[in-house]
Amino acid sequence: MEKLTGKAIIAMGGGPTAVINQSLVGAVLQARQYPNITQFYGAFRGVEGLIEEQLVNLTEATTHNLEMVACTPGAGIRSTRLKPKEEHCKKIFDVCEAHGIHYFFYIGGNDSAETCRIVNKFALEADYELRVMHIPKTIDNDLRVTDHCPGYGSAAKFVAQSFMGVNLDNRSLPGVYIGVVMGRHAGFLTAASVFARKYDDDGPHLIYLPEKSFNIEEFLASVDAAYTKYGRVVVAVSEGIHSDDGTPVVASLVKEVERDAHGNIQLSGTTSLGDALMEQVKSGLKIKRVRSDTFGYLQRSFLGCVSEVDANEAREVGERAVQIAAWHRVDGSITIERVGDYGVRYNVSPLEAVAKETKSMPDSFIEGVNNVTVDFKNYARPLLGELPVYERIHAPKVEKILNKE
Amino acid sequence: MEKLTGKAIIAMGGGPTAVINQSLVGAVLQARQYPNITQFYGAFRGVEGLIEEQLVNLTEATTHNLEMVACTPGAGIRSTRLKPKEEHCKKIFDVCEAHGIHYFFYIGGNDSAETCRIVNKFALEADYELRVMHIPKTIDNDLRVTDHCPGYGSAAKFVAQSFMGVNLDNRSLPGVYIGVVMGRHAGFLTAASVFARKYDDDGPHLIYLPEKSFNIEEFLASVDAAYTKYGRVVVAVSEGIHSDDGTPVVASLVKEVERDAHGNIQLSGTTSLGDALMEQVKSGLKIKRVRSDTFGYLQRSFLGCVSEVDANEAREVGERAVQIAAWHRVDGSITIERVGDYGVRYNVSPLEAVAKETKSMPDSFIEGVNNVTVDFKNYARPLLGELPVYERIHAPKVEKILNKE
Repeated sequence: MEKLTGKAIIAMGGGPTAVINQSLVGAVLQARQYPNITQFYGAFRGVEGLIEEQLVNLTEATTHNLEMVACTPGAGIRSTRLKPKEEHCKKIFDVCEAHGIHYFFYIGGNDSAETCRIVNKFALEADYELRVMHIPKTIDNDLRVTDHCPGYGSAAKFVAQSFMGVNLDNRSLPGVYIGVVMGRHAGFLTAASVFARKYDDDGPHLIYLPEKSFNIEEFLASVDAAYTKYGRVVVAVSEGIHSDDGTPVVASLVKEVERDAHGNIQLSGTTSLGDALMEQVKSGLKIKRVRSDTFGYLQRSFLGCVSEVDANEAREVGERAVQIAAWHRVDGSITIERVGDYGVRYNVSPLEAVAKETKSMPDSFIEGVNNVTVDFKNYARPLLGELPVYERIHAPKVEKILNKE
Repeated sequence: MEKLTGKAIIAMGGGPTAVINQSLVGAVLQARQYPNITQFYGAFRGVEGLIEEQLVNLTEATTHNLEMVACTPGAGIRSTRLKPKEEHCKKIFDVCEAHGIHYFFYIGGNDSAETCRIVNKFALEADYELRVMHIPKTIDNDLRVTDHCPGYGSAAKFVAQSFMGVNLDNRSLPGVYIGVVMGRHAGFLTAASVFARKYDDDGPHLIYLPEKSFNIEEFLASVDAAYTKYGRVVVAVSEGIHSDDGTPVVASLVKEVERDAHGNIQLSGTTSLGDALMEQVKSGLKIKRVRSDTFGYLQRSFLGCVSEVDANEAREVGERAVQIAAWHRVDGSITIERVGDYGVRYNVSPLEAVAKETKSMPDSFIEGVNNVTVDFKNYARPLLGELPVYERIHAPKVEKILNKE
């Protein structure tokens, strides 16, 4: 098969992750081995830069520079929240054609896969050979087909290490602590808080996922029971929890909520949910020391908390995207298949199998309304890489002299 | 000089840190070298455990267990918020006397030093030889006499790495980001956000400290100017910022605020300040993408972000407290003196010199109303230990074809 000769371009869409730049660098460095990929461009601000022709020539980035960027969280060539319409995708195709670009790589989630699909359609219609490859990325871990998404492992590691810490803090100065974790529809990230539990009485004692309806009475009863049992409670809550009828809890508990351009309620970068739940616990259970943190953007951006497994896989999906596009002249989305315990194989799935819809936690990962199963732990454990360990003091009590019981 | 023979006890007070257990373990293991320190007890929940005689015998904790605990954030033998009154301190002394305790070590901040002072007074009055040694600890870095406090470096490192990350995230998807950092009166922790700046246009672009009066008009004007200049803004704000007349900003912007038992407004574990500032920016400057995070308890508890310098010094103040008490029969607070660039020497200061009042950032560390100086960076840099580095892509722009300018 003759090799397709032309330029390549890469772009990034949606919220960045701690390892998204690994995929970028994996693709760029891999492509340097193919003489038929003549130049490698990057589009600034995802499809926005493609539409506006704001491109950089990554062919002239040094290897050291790229390797440093690979270890940097955030989107190295910036990202975008734009979900392009058909006319945008047509423009993207026009820019590719004008620049002699025959390889299009887009790192992102389901929306980015959909963009790939539409751009690909225009290329086919124009009979212009354009390899379109979606490279998966999301901290939510909500893409279909793939076993898991690059970006999830590192964010999950941050969540686990955060709950390890706040569990120890809560044990030092007891009370109720509510930690709000990202995840509008999928609870994978919140579920990772389970790895903070070492001893039976360690938190999080309750884990609320968006896959299950949230009921404020059940919540208060469970907090009350845990508080009675442990003298303290650590709760992990997904920002996307909602009531039976689908109303987000944040909307029913808080008066003013912000909606984004799509009419979606803003869940991150605001802390209403945590504060609202805190007020419920204070007023409903008369517990004095109640605290809440919303982990916010630190979850996906903190410099210095990366799962080595996640980083390697993010690198590999970038490399594989280029390899498959260059050697096999195939379009699609790179997906991860789990083999053995624990290994992975990289496949290509049709773009439409990954685009648009997302997936959430399967029932087998969820226990009741406020816990996760061992199945989930077995699934997620290898993705988080090596976790730090903590310990409590094991020492005998001293017999009382003045206050003999 | 004859050595004082008896048991020792250690307790922890106030908010825990990432390295407080290093001081505990430093003291306990050091004491094992002194045959005249016959047993080493730990008081559960600080002075509360002492008052109620809830003690554990740390003499029977294994070395491995203690070394593991040393690397664990949070208070290993739990902590307390109780500021003991005279009658409590009398009880503490009674318990010491009843158990034959002649060495009392208290790890904490200025309130703990004050407790030490009062307990010492009762011992002197009773002509009972009790070595009382205060071991410094606070993430706020607000203790007098000492150059800096164990616990600060690790929390500052967390703040720096957080702002590195959110700066990169904000660069990926531009807007205004406000990160709220702990620190009621002292801005040292918020100031550490400055280490996130690598390139001239990196954030935090504005740093607001509690040492300077906060003016909402100046704030909005500065955010506006930075947004015009950079197309994005990252702001670091101390939770303790207040207006000219001393009113906390959170109190003037938010209607309902919680007050603690001392009448202090609750600043941590609630996110009102960040949300209130976010609303001001949205409504005042008509900027659409405005986000706010309150770093909360992760700052002092996150498992996996420790300054090695801080950990070593926390260990050493624990060791030195025992050495000085055992060899020199002196009471006081261990203080750190900075020598050369960068070394430290450990001294003992009178308890009354450290107790009660705190210190805040000197003027030489503050630039205008929203920045810190190079002097501060030189002061703080060695305390944070090794920081991770990040990098941006250096690549030339591609000339436009379709949209020639």
